[in-house]
Amino acid sequence: MSQTLQAIPARKGVAHRLRAGSLVKIINTHGSQVVDCWAFVLPDTQEFMSMEHSRAEISRITPRIGDSLFTNRRRPILTLIEDTSPGVHDTTLAACDVYRYQRLGAKGYHDNCADNLVSAMKAADVFLPAVPCPFNIWENSRVQPDFTQTIEPPLSKPGDYVILRAELDIVIVFSACPQDMLPCNGADCQPKDAHFVAF
Amino acid sequence: MSQTLQAIPARKGVAHRLRAGSLVKIINTHGSQVVDCWAFVLPDTQEFMSMEHSRAEISRITPRIGDSLFTNRRRPILTLIEDTSPGVHDTTLAACDVYRYQRLGAKGYHDNCADNLVSAMKAADVFLPAVPCPFNIWENSRVQPDFTQTIEPPLSKPGDYVILRAELDIVIVFSACPQDMLPCNGADCQPKDAHFVAF
Repeated sequence: MSQTLQAIPARKGVAHRLRAGSLVKIINTHGSQVVDCWAFVLPDTQEFMSMEHSRAEISRITPRIGDSLFTNRRRPILTLIEDTSPGVHDTTLAACDVYRYQRLGAKGYHDNCADNLVSAMKAADVFLPAVPCPFNIWENSRVQPDFTQTIEPPLSKPGDYVILRAELDIVIVFSACPQDMLPCNGADCQPKDAHFVAF
Repeated sequence: MSQTLQAIPARKGVAHRLRAGSLVKIINTHGSQVVDCWAFVLPDTQEFMSMEHSRAEISRITPRIGDSLFTNRRRPILTLIEDTSPGVHDTTLAACDVYRYQRLGAKGYHDNCADNLVSAMKAADVFLPAVPCPFNIWENSRVQPDFTQTIEPPLSKPGDYVILRAELDIVIVFSACPQDMLPCNGADCQPKDAHFVAF
């Protein structure tokens, strides 16, 4: 396996194949970038990481170290091995998409995580069966006691990383979220590069 | 439109077509039954009610009266018009499925909401593009400050109902959740009939 540091360019997505048992380190290079993450089983991508199945299996709204994320067939697909950040990640919010930016008043086309997933899977020549809810690494969403949800800038700092272990042969996709109309990627609303290393 | 009271038989699912603007009243006849609910746009069912898009649009983990639920293209599809229960419903947990019951130790086949969705859509002769996360009416799940989730028996009482308005032409599917290995349908773990009226 390559141990090369690879970029997740600001506003863009990238796919990478991982063998069962291998690790991937995702680095918040500049500290406040949300990285949307999806995983699909190979070769049958109809089985994929599912946030609603994961929550039901771990009885948590976000995984802690040692917890797995599960597929839509309730098999562990990724396990959170290490996390240097405060551990606040989101499993509840859809990837941003053209409809989201239209509703926010964007003029013309706006980069978005859903299209980044589509493009990354196409570039990797892997069939995309759906756009599942992503694991939004470092997205600082909180459920309040009154059932409202707040989204604040990430709590991570530059160089924070998470390490995930693939439990199955998968293609993993990362998108450096292009949201620049709300402060979910930091108070400056400036999407930035993130990086990853597979090993 | 028929105003006949229709059964959602215990452990089973049923599909019903609704025109935009029409209402449907879902009744918790015995008081503690969770009703999984899905909605698909007609005629193009590739657009469907999505919990992850709904949460993002309403900034809430569960809708309150007046809130809409949204499709995967971020259009309002159902609006919560009335709710006589304490308003605790779940949007975060996958429908129960064969994998769930296998993991819980069930012997042989166990009725489940995912298969009920498949059967109901087949009976209604409508193409099912996916098994989205359902709107779990009356499921008493709570997100705690430490990010854990608890599931307790419903807070509803016999005869409580919710009224939803269809914002688009849709097929709506209800499943009277067959979960009898955990107390999510009441402390007696006995799935029961629910009912609905469209008008």
